[in-house]
Amino acid sequence: MPRPDPAELYELTEDGQIRSPTQTHSASQYVDGRTIDWLQEEAVERERTNSQRAQHGVRGLLLPWFDAARMWLVVILIGIGIGVTGGWLDVLVKWLGDLREGRCSYGFFYNQVACCSGVKPGEACTDWRTWSEFFGVGPAPAQALLQSFVYVSLAVAFAGSAAVLVKTYAPYAFHTGIPEIKAILGGYVLTAFLTPWTLLIKALGLALAVASGLSLGKEGPLVHVACCMAYLLSRFFKQFRNSEAQQRKLLAAAAAAGVSVAFGSPLGGVLFGLEELDTFANESEVMWRGFVASAVAAVSLQWVNPFGTSKLVLFQVTNASDTWRAFELIPWLTLGVIGGILGSVLIKLNVEIALYRRNSALNEWPIVEVIGVSAITAAISYLVVFSRVQASELVANLFQECDPTKIDYHGLCNPTAMWENVFLLILTAAIKVLLTAWTFGMMIPAGIFLPTIAIGACLGRAVGLLTQGLQRAYPTAWIFLSCPPDPSVRCVSPGFYAVIGASAMLGGVTRMTISLVVILFELTGALSHVLPIMISVMTSKWVGDAFGKDGGIYAVWIAMRGYPWLPPVDFEDKGDTGAQLMRPLERLVVIEDEQDTVLSLDGMLNDHDFHGFPVVRRQEFLGFVTRDKLRLALAPLLCEDSERRKRCFFSSQTSSPDEQVDFSSLLEEAVLQLRQEVPKELVVNMFQKMNLRQIIFTTGGKLRGMVTKSDVVKLLTCNFPHSGALGSGARRSWA
Amino acid sequence: MPRPDPAELYELTEDGQIRSPTQTHSASQYVDGRTIDWLQEEAVERERTNSQRAQHGVRGLLLPWFDAARMWLVVILIGIGIGVTGGWLDVLVKWLGDLREGRCSYGFFYNQVACCSGVKPGEACTDWRTWSEFFGVGPAPAQALLQSFVYVSLAVAFAGSAAVLVKTYAPYAFHTGIPEIKAILGGYVLTAFLTPWTLLIKALGLALAVASGLSLGKEGPLVHVACCMAYLLSRFFKQFRNSEAQQRKLLAAAAAAGVSVAFGSPLGGVLFGLEELDTFANESEVMWRGFVASAVAAVSLQWVNPFGTSKLVLFQVTNASDTWRAFELIPWLTLGVIGGILGSVLIKLNVEIALYRRNSALNEWPIVEVIGVSAITAAISYLVVFSRVQASELVANLFQECDPTKIDYHGLCNPTAMWENVFLLILTAAIKVLLTAWTFGMMIPAGIFLPTIAIGACLGRAVGLLTQGLQRAYPTAWIFLSCPPDPSVRCVSPGFYAVIGASAMLGGVTRMTISLVVILFELTGALSHVLPIMISVMTSKWVGDAFGKDGGIYAVWIAMRGYPWLPPVDFEDKGDTGAQLMRPLERLVVIEDEQDTVLSLDGMLNDHDFHGFPVVRRQEFLGFVTRDKLRLALAPLLCEDSERRKRCFFSSQTSSPDEQVDFSSLLEEAVLQLRQEVPKELVVNMFQKMNLRQIIFTTGGKLRGMVTKSDVVKLLTCNFPHSGALGSGARRSWA
Repeated sequence: MPRPDPAELYELTEDGQIRSPTQTHSASQYVDGRTIDWLQEEAVERERTNSQRAQHGVRGLLLPWFDAARMWLVVILIGIGIGVTGGWLDVLVKWLGDLREGRCSYGFFYNQVACCSGVKPGEACTDWRTWSEFFGVGPAPAQALLQSFVYVSLAVAFAGSAAVLVKTYAPYAFHTGIPEIKAILGGYVLTAFLTPWTLLIKALGLALAVASGLSLGKEGPLVHVACCMAYLLSRFFKQFRNSEAQQRKLLAAAAAAGVSVAFGSPLGGVLFGLEELDTFANESEVMWRGFVASAVAAVSLQWVNPFGTSKLVLFQVTNASDTWRAFELIPWLTLGVIGGILGSVLIKLNVEIALYRRNSALNEWPIVEVIGVSAITAAISYLVVFSRVQASELVANLFQECDPTKIDYHGLCNPTAMWENVFLLILTAAIKVLLTAWTFGMMIPAGIFLPTIAIGACLGRAVGLLTQGLQRAYPTAWIFLSCPPDPSVRCVSPGFYAVIGASAMLGGVTRMTISLVVILFELTGALSHVLPIMISVMTSKWVGDAFGKDGGIYAVWIAMRGYPWLPPVDFEDKGDTGAQLMRPLERLVVIEDEQDTVLSLDGMLNDHDFHGFPVVRRQEFLGFVTRDKLRLALAPLLCEDSERRKRCFFSSQTSSPDEQVDFSSLLEEAVLQLRQEVPKELVVNMFQKMNLRQIIFTTGGKLRGMVTKSDVVKLLTCNFPHSGALGSGARRSWA
Repeated sequence: MPRPDPAELYELTEDGQIRSPTQTHSASQYVDGRTIDWLQEEAVERERTNSQRAQHGVRGLLLPWFDAARMWLVVILIGIGIGVTGGWLDVLVKWLGDLREGRCSYGFFYNQVACCSGVKPGEACTDWRTWSEFFGVGPAPAQALLQSFVYVSLAVAFAGSAAVLVKTYAPYAFHTGIPEIKAILGGYVLTAFLTPWTLLIKALGLALAVASGLSLGKEGPLVHVACCMAYLLSRFFKQFRNSEAQQRKLLAAAAAAGVSVAFGSPLGGVLFGLEELDTFANESEVMWRGFVASAVAAVSLQWVNPFGTSKLVLFQVTNASDTWRAFELIPWLTLGVIGGILGSVLIKLNVEIALYRRNSALNEWPIVEVIGVSAITAAISYLVVFSRVQASELVANLFQECDPTKIDYHGLCNPTAMWENVFLLILTAAIKVLLTAWTFGMMIPAGIFLPTIAIGACLGRAVGLLTQGLQRAYPTAWIFLSCPPDPSVRCVSPGFYAVIGASAMLGGVTRMTISLVVILFELTGALSHVLPIMISVMTSKWVGDAFGKDGGIYAVWIAMRGYPWLPPVDFEDKGDTGAQLMRPLERLVVIEDEQDTVLSLDGMLNDHDFHGFPVVRRQEFLGFVTRDKLRLALAPLLCEDSERRKRCFFSSQTSSPDEQVDFSSLLEEAVLQLRQEVPKELVVNMFQKMNLRQIIFTTGGKLRGMVTKSDVVKLLTCNFPHSGALGSGARRSWA
């Protein structure tokens, strides 16, 4: 890393004074791969608001108000931005998807629904032409050949161009983005992940990837897009530009808005932020912003109205019987168990594939991989009837109850074809598990939610069909006595079993609980069935956790990438204390007050990559100095020979300041200190709850050791076998 | 308080050894009014699980498993218990309520619905007889007189007997219980609040109070009942009996289950625990238990099926149009503002009445007050048509859209009587505000949710009627152009405005956000309207907070009672440090190592009521000794004259142990220490997040001062004018 010119870091303040770098604390002080110091950030923010309030007269009253107004403006803009973007992405995806089958005769840029919107119900739509009609191909085999050729080649073209875009312009735009966002919200610095360029490529690539028919969803990437927007907007305001902590609070709200738009689930967005991103626990104010951003985003999405239904509910469950019977608990619990097991299997499979990809020739040929997988996916999709349509359409159909007045989707409602349907559904699920495990991690934007829902819906519908078949075959068995005696009245609703299956599968893969339940019933509108959904999510999480305490697919990817993220697990020590966790004094690099010279300090900075150094005087702990502050203070002194050999003092009570360099302004004295006898559990707990970067251990004022966030992360992820397997090798840099 | 006999506190362990009181840490060590030490509790729990795991062979494997099994057993039993209790309470209330109007001819213990269940639709029910029919009173005026006489006198009898029960047997069974539960979950010890006696009286008194028709709800008290049940169940298992922290984790799950049953809202229960009780932030495990307890409770309630509908949704919203128009945002935002203002007014009114009650003669005559208010309430209820029925029935009717096929509730759907209806609705709301402000705090079990919903629903329906009237009067105005042109199609749904009004009012009174939204749509089933509900809750919270940062009615009551509860507010200091917050060394009572004698320590214990004392040697901080441990250790020594003058040493490195008493086992060394330069904000933050009881401030190992939880509570509640106004005068006891 090139050393920054210190002059660049001096900054002209609004009142024309030059602020020294030890006073200012701009966001630029952090480089990618570091972890921000929340306590420090909060202190700077506190100082800023206090200086505002201290201003005389109206200024002192208005400045804080302007601050709040700007913040709410940004939150509302984020909501509107992601709502509108999400809506238009849906329109784009629909158009691209339809393009694989044909085009509108009177305008290239109309999708099938828009093209046929002028047609009265009952009439055939002649404006929309399939490619074979458009090119005037006559014979049926040639038609089929042309259609499937265009279908597969456009799929490959979409996926390939998405991969090229990502690979060339914004490598961080690949994958879901949730693991990175979790790490960033926890304090990790990864500016490259949030650039406008990433925003553009991720949005565009996402539309292409979804339209290509690969086994992926748009949910996670939309959250990423929302966060990029928030970052971009925050750059326009000094109050956010200068504070990484304030930026992160905006990002949290943006993430909630992203989920809100992805699922049409404003409440689910807030809860996702609460449960999965684990950010709102810190401040109710942040949750509140997430709430507002989420609501605004949902209103904006409804205003864009991409599906022309003016509804937020994506997969409306209709006709499901309102009551449920006790015997149904058996298939539902079964689905929960299947979801838990299959979720674990999917995670493990995904990890193995990711490791294989990293260590094989595929690592060098990501675009070829995407093209190959998209070709295979498109080909298989043509063969297996249920996967020919977009996953979202499949899910919508599986969630639908059979209704004689509506079109029967691929004979799913034909009672005589039960076994064929069950076989096909299970086959589809199995294929989707394999494809998803491979797709999630390729060089394209890809979410895991929708494929998981599709897999679960297939299995759930299969179990539902089996239960229904059993009930119809033995309507008088004692277990089915609670069913209505009239055989024409439906007792078992297989469509609702698909919802249960989807919840169970999602529970197994993500290990989320409340937010999942809320998202699912905002997604389906099946409020009266909240209890069965809760029960299946509960069961699948239990079973999944029993198969491996990996904490869901996002936590696994965070561990594989080696991000410094503290999983919110309840750590239990075995009687250990902080002394066992800390890096003892002998292994610490410390600054000796009034002993170290300018030159020796510079050498220390070059030798060690640590974020900061404790300052001691004869073992007595004085305070903490961060690397960046020290480097900035040393830079001007290194040029003058007379200064280079001078000793430096950090404590303010020193007696001989004349021949020494005064670094006392660098020293942070308000550092958390604990005794080393404190239980390890408490130390871990403090890191988890207080967002700390380090804790100093002292006894009677003497430095004993230090624990950094990275030590705690290592401790908590040590039982996961592939920690850091996908990391960039720079794992130590945030230590 | 009588001093406990130390011998009683010695305990025979399972392996037959006598455990010294310094090793054991039974729950009985805490007396009411103290705050538990979470860190200490966690340490004991950790020791216990470690000793279990250390057991040889199968025992070491099975013991932790048994622990978990017992815990889940208790959680599930709590869920079943409160579900069944809640269901049966509903049945009891229905019966008592119907009894005010008549009785079943073939059985005294049937309510009206059960009595008429055999009657075919369309036929008149002759088995249910009003009192005038039963007594064979002929003339209409005499009938009305008899009916109203029985109505009012039974109301007074119910309310009076509830008050007598509460006053005589369980004073803690009065009021809602939520403030106390919040304090208890935060660590406050109030065993009297959770006794089986309180459980019985609260449940019985609640049924009587609700049936009496007073302006109160069953929601908060049901949470209290659930917590009492959890406490009772936990007493059967040693692992909970001996650990206040484990008990509290069970109580949190029970509270979630209580809300789940009260509103038929399993998800709302979990979120209530998350947001309002602020307990799950600590451990995901606890949230998980709340989830399970909540789901089990809802299933049990559905199994009891008190309303015979086999539905959880209490106030089903039907026929509401699925789409909404942009202009409707204006009345909805108006409702949000009204809710925020009126919520604040209700809180302030309630506070003033509570203070007046405390300082006037009413304080001595609680039962007379209840009887008087119930008589007034019953009389007014008879006069104002909308309040004659139970509040829950009123709400259900206000939430209902007009439907020509159904009975028109008191002419609410008559378009020509709009102004009369609006006037009546506003009058009802105003009366209910006054009655509720008075009732909430009397000597009976009383919840605030249902009355608040009723007030909000009246106002919302009124605004809805006005909007509808405006739209019908000017259907061609540009603002109403989005309405369907056909005037017979409904454009504005006043029933849904009632839901919005209820949300806004609840938001203003409780200042909850997400959990409120979830509870409301689990209550109404109006999932497609989640956005308007969110917007109104948002607005009313904003407006309410602008009128006073009191944090809702529960926080106000906690402050008035002076419980040591830390509000989860974002505290911002003005550049202050811990030094300004702490009680400095000069004002601390400390133990001097090797200086204090047995006698002087005993004198210190008698003079000062503090929970614990720092131990120092020449200003150097050695550790912390709790009052209870010290008292137990001193007790046997005080009897012998030779021991009483001996000096005591606490530090283990002392050189002359012979002539001194060894108290080193009492010393807690793993105490949190900070420097006094740490920002005040951080200190407050640590108390809020880590559940601490005290923080010691040291510099270079020297004791500088101490901050206790009570100091922080005082700091955070200092801007509320009536802090501790209803306290028992023992406010200092938990310091």
